[in-house]
Amino acid sequence: MNFASDNSGPAHEQIIAAIAAANAGFSPSYGAEDAMSELRAHMRALFEAPAASIHLVATGTAANALALATLAQPWQTIYCTPLAHINCDECQAPEFYTGGSKLTLVGTDDKMTPDALDRAISAAGHGNVHVAQPGPVSLTQVTEMGRLYTLDELQALSGVAAAHGLPVHLDGARFANALVALGCSPAEMTWKAGIDAVSFGGTKNGCIGVEAVIFFNPEAAWEFELRRKRAAHLFSKHRFLSAQMGAYLADDLWLTSARAANAHGARLAQGLGALPDCHFLAEPQANMIFATLPRAAHQRLHAAGARYHLNGGPLETGPEDEPLPMRLVCDWSIEDSEIDRFIGIAQG
Amino acid sequence: MNFASDNSGPAHEQIIAAIAAANAGFSPSYGAEDAMSELRAHMRALFEAPAASIHLVATGTAANALALATLAQPWQTIYCTPLAHINCDECQAPEFYTGGSKLTLVGTDDKMTPDALDRAISAAGHGNVHVAQPGPVSLTQVTEMGRLYTLDELQALSGVAAAHGLPVHLDGARFANALVALGCSPAEMTWKAGIDAVSFGGTKNGCIGVEAVIFFNPEAAWEFELRRKRAAHLFSKHRFLSAQMGAYLADDLWLTSARAANAHGARLAQGLGALPDCHFLAEPQANMIFATLPRAAHQRLHAAGARYHLNGGPLETGPEDEPLPMRLVCDWSIEDSEIDRFIGIAQG
Amino acid sequence: MNFASDNSGPAHEQIIAAIAAANAGFSPSYGAEDAMSELRAHMRALFEAPAASIHLVATGTAANALALATLAQPWQTIYCTPLAHINCDECQAPEFYTGGSKLTLVGTDDKMTPDALDRAISAAGHGNVHVAQPGPVSLTQVTEMGRLYTLDELQALSGVAAAHGLPVHLDGARFANALVALGCSPAEMTWKAGIDAVSFGGTKNGCIGVEAVIFFNPEAAWEFELRRKRAAHLFSKHRFLSAQMGAYLADDLWLTSARAANAHGARLAQGLGALPDCHFLAEPQANMIFATLPRAAHQRLHAAGARYHLNGGPLETGPEDEPLPMRLVCDWSIEDSEIDRFIGIAQG
Amino acid sequence: MNFASDNSGPAHEQIIAAIAAANAGFSPSYGAEDAMSELRAHMRALFEAPAASIHLVATGTAANALALATLAQPWQTIYCTPLAHINCDECQAPEFYTGGSKLTLVGTDDKMTPDALDRAISAAGHGNVHVAQPGPVSLTQVTEMGRLYTLDELQALSGVAAAHGLPVHLDGARFANALVALGCSPAEMTWKAGIDAVSFGGTKNGCIGVEAVIFFNPEAAWEFELRRKRAAHLFSKHRFLSAQMGAYLADDLWLTSARAANAHGARLAQGLGALPDCHFLAEPQANMIFATLPRAAHQRLHAAGARYHLNGGPLETGPEDEPLPMRLVCDWSIEDSEIDRFIGIAQG
Repeated sequence: MNFASDNSGPAHEQIIAAIAAANAGFSPSYGAEDAMSELRAHMRALFEAPAASIHLVATGTAANALALATLAQPWQTIYCTPLAHINCDECQAPEFYTGGSKLTLVGTDDKMTPDALDRAISAAGHGNVHVAQPGPVSLTQVTEMGRLYTLDELQALSGVAAAHGLPVHLDGARFANALVALGCSPAEMTWKAGIDAVSFGGTKNGCIGVEAVIFFNPEAAWEFELRRKRAAHLFSKHRFLSAQMGAYLADDLWLTSARAANAHGARLAQGLGALPDCHFLAEPQANMIFATLPRAAHQRLHAAGARYHLNGGPLETGPEDEPLPMRLVCDWSIEDSEIDRFIGIAQG
Repeated sequence: MNFASDNSGPAHEQIIAAIAAANAGFSPSYGAEDAMSELRAHMRALFEAPAASIHLVATGTAANALALATLAQPWQTIYCTPLAHINCDECQAPEFYTGGSKLTLVGTDDKMTPDALDRAISAAGHGNVHVAQPGPVSLTQVTEMGRLYTLDELQALSGVAAAHGLPVHLDGARFANALVALGCSPAEMTWKAGIDAVSFGGTKNGCIGVEAVIFFNPEAAWEFELRRKRAAHLFSKHRFLSAQMGAYLADDLWLTSARAANAHGARLAQGLGALPDCHFLAEPQANMIFATLPRAAHQRLHAAGARYHLNGGPLETGPEDEPLPMRLVCDWSIEDSEIDRFIGIAQG
Repeated sequence: MNFASDNSGPAHEQIIAAIAAANAGFSPSYGAEDAMSELRAHMRALFEAPAASIHLVATGTAANALALATLAQPWQTIYCTPLAHINCDECQAPEFYTGGSKLTLVGTDDKMTPDALDRAISAAGHGNVHVAQPGPVSLTQVTEMGRLYTLDELQALSGVAAAHGLPVHLDGARFANALVALGCSPAEMTWKAGIDAVSFGGTKNGCIGVEAVIFFNPEAAWEFELRRKRAAHLFSKHRFLSAQMGAYLADDLWLTSARAANAHGARLAQGLGALPDCHFLAEPQANMIFATLPRAAHQRLHAAGARYHLNGGPLETGPEDEPLPMRLVCDWSIEDSEIDRFIGIAQG
Repeated sequence: MNFASDNSGPAHEQIIAAIAAANAGFSPSYGAEDAMSELRAHMRALFEAPAASIHLVATGTAANALALATLAQPWQTIYCTPLAHINCDECQAPEFYTGGSKLTLVGTDDKMTPDALDRAISAAGHGNVHVAQPGPVSLTQVTEMGRLYTLDELQALSGVAAAHGLPVHLDGARFANALVALGCSPAEMTWKAGIDAVSFGGTKNGCIGVEAVIFFNPEAAWEFELRRKRAAHLFSKHRFLSAQMGAYLADDLWLTSARAANAHGARLAQGLGALPDCHFLAEPQANMIFATLPRAAHQRLHAAGARYHLNGGPLETGPEDEPLPMRLVCDWSIEDSEIDRFIGIAQG
């Protein structure tokens, strides 16, 4: 019963197999392998973006921080939500990589509205040398609370950014989960919705460690390459990154895997939703669930070995019926029986 | 006939197998996996350093730059040779990670002498607020020209550093190649020789992408952890780093592999040394050879598909007997027949 | 009728005279002049801190950013209020100088409470490598809304910081205004209240451009010297900084000047307070007033040439009786007749 | 007998008077004063550059580091000589302000040749992601050894830079001394010679502390403004900078002062040149002299209270006739009698 994170789960067998297959003899280093050229062509076709620049790194934080550093100037501020991964979970990697950009927090949770974004940008004092200058907008899809921006919402937010002349970055650590939930195309969820750069996640959806950074305006490509190298994120044996991403996109593995994770999430949500004592903190739309359960239920679950983030506490002492919040993440690999067992124990 | 680099070769089967084996079900993220604890204990025993702090990253540049950033202050200068990887091949990753440290180049090639180091440090103006302050000394073992520092040389250099109160970093991208060439213990080549921090390479010796950073003074550990995280070099699925390093050190794979690479280097050096037109630019002591061959020999080798760094040129035009310099690197996986074929073609 | 800022006013004649007097023949550069030694001794006596380290810079932002960079690590977050000068008015100088520290905003206005500070620090995840680590607390005295922390409030806030092992910085751009308002000693408002480092302002209180940075723990001194030099804030003709600060502190000029500014503030507050249409946004406690006046009053004042920050608008159109917020700052040099004229016009 | 530095001397009376005159009542802050507009117009006319952007800072290091940070990217290297002030005397301010640029040292002393510059740039590996990318060229005029680049030399060097697409910065801490020595116009020594940005010194030639940064391409202006502000180098009471620079340029004070300093230098050089034991280390062309004198002469001079940089030693012990190198700088204010006395004592 492991719902700790989708980075706790295993990689797909196809990913492991692709790594083994890539391990044949000598190969050019640093991204010059043929597989990278093929991958680049594949991803451009997938995104209907023949000129896009495509780069691979091994961690989602690297993808986010390097993409934002390429889009932002050090004296600018980046717009994101208070719960954004770049604000809460990256130990100031964006501040480090940008050379001291600020993050301006928009809204109060995991999603921002166009109005709130417009107010924040308008308040920033563009052209006033004393204050942080407006910089890129960074949106997360799936959000950190497991929710989605609709295509219309993305369009409206990028419209605000464009009206202020600002680029938009999409943190797509769970890009595939969002895509299959929305049922749209990669192009529709990105450049057709006004997105300029994407962190396209693989790690959380069954890879070992690979993320693509995509710029739809290829002018950023060379700067990104230099930033990646001096950040030590350019792999010499790069073939093992392109092999992962190639296998991830082959035969729709990425979509199949995301559908599995989302289906697990839906099953878990349905089961929990039927419990009278369970209250959702955000509408479950992909593979993450934020909800409360009474302390007694948490105690039973922990006793049974369930793993997940308990966001309040203490677990051990307090009223049995006090609701305590939790985060549950469904990896693609979790088994239905585990989900059902979790629900059963939660039910008591 | 690929002598381009030891990062062009494949990984060992045991490394691939270890990755596959590590891919079993759920595992704690970010280095909390049991395999990391076991690895830490193993490496401490190996280095006879029970208190050492051990950290894994995926690239050699990350190991070097993060280790140096932990040892140096932004207003200090790092002492290295003009040919040091940190000076020539990392696109200023050390300057980036340290926040603007300078590199002071000691000597004229790939090795520094204690006298030259002492002069450089003494000239630096310690305590003069207008100039760069003395900072860490960074030595490379095997050097970038394929040579070795003897234990006495290491001791003498670290003695100079210690006399000035400066720490010593060892860039050990080819640590194993140096160790088997010297026939000493890991402790003897590091802390017993006055080394404070080591970039312990795995990638160039048969791993996919893993390097350990070792601090013999564990006070640096927490700062390094924070620096690694905000640099986006902390892997969520860290188990695939510890699995590689675990397999690398198991059953002496690292030593066997390095002995193979060095033996290939010796075979190649012996063959080339017998050619009247071949002149070594540095004494071959491990798996890298710097030498000249006449243009005609290079033309024959290129026509036959040999891959290596030609450090002069042009290849196509000029006197047939003009000596042109080259770098040849022997991967652990290169076959003797390839070496012999290379020598045969070079001979004409 | 200039209430724009206390950096719009002139310097005292004594400051100009001191500069002229310091301009006699040759003098050692970079702070080695005798006047700096004398100043250092004077300030140590003034603060009853014989070991304090004292440094001069020319701008308040330099004092703040360099002091904070000395106290903070790049992976830490600095606690301040949303209205803090370091957050709103320095174009991210703290982020730049610290190498990417974050600012965590405590409270909702210009003052923080011990409870809010404690909650913010406790929430920060000390020891969790994924998040910003707790760093220095920065308080502003006089605050950006013209209010004061009492000595008890300072003590309580520094107590919270100390309980978490964090240092406290005081942005004293208007240090003298606060001191005379509280009627306490420099020591009482700083180290006796738990403050570790002070930006001690001179510029806003009648100097040309000079601020002192004071560390009560002299261990920070050498690092600060190096940070100041590489930031290009060490003056070669430093005698013109020490001359200003020397004259500022001589004959209680700094206190006399601050008393004058505060008395002007009180006169203005009294006059405005008597107007039925004026509403204070913060209790005036020093030389700054935040209040509203009806649009019609602002229109009259602007027509008459009054200068001050109108923080809303538009001035020209809208209901005549709509209250619009303003900031009024009383320089030491403003004349009572100007104040009275302002009140008269505001009254209509 | 003070030849320590031209930053040890006093300011002109006109500079002091201008500061006093600027101290009249209220004035807009942060460079919005009328005097700055007038100065901007004056300097544009002086440089025959109607579109140039003009900015003031208080220190030469700030001028250099901020100008270079505006011209360079963090992954680039700046070309300068080993003796350049930016390399030797600024505690890595350029590395700090650029965010980690490297300095590539061209030549062996205080001047670079076009050939050496071309070789250095050509060797840099433009387009190779592993190495520092070519960035701006920084020339110093007067050089750190008191020599000059002729206009032809400047032209040839900037031609090399232009051929590689690189901008050229001129460190003109002693701009006026060079200008009067060459007898050319400001335009001839700058943009007509291919210079893109200038640090135009005032401090060393009789100001208190003011330097102008000039960009002939005004596109850099806004970025520079932001960099200056976040570096804390934007003065609130900016009128005291524009007053200094205004007085410096009025009535040819800057040229008169530089001519005086150079004449002092020539008188000193002539006197020393007549001594059989004095040997020049560089041809004296402005107000700085690098030469050797026997130890006994230094001993006499020190006993008589002469102040200057003795670049070797020890002074006290060793052969009386051993030549020891020194640097002598003639301030505009030094008196001929002091020069003659120095020569007399040196003569013995």
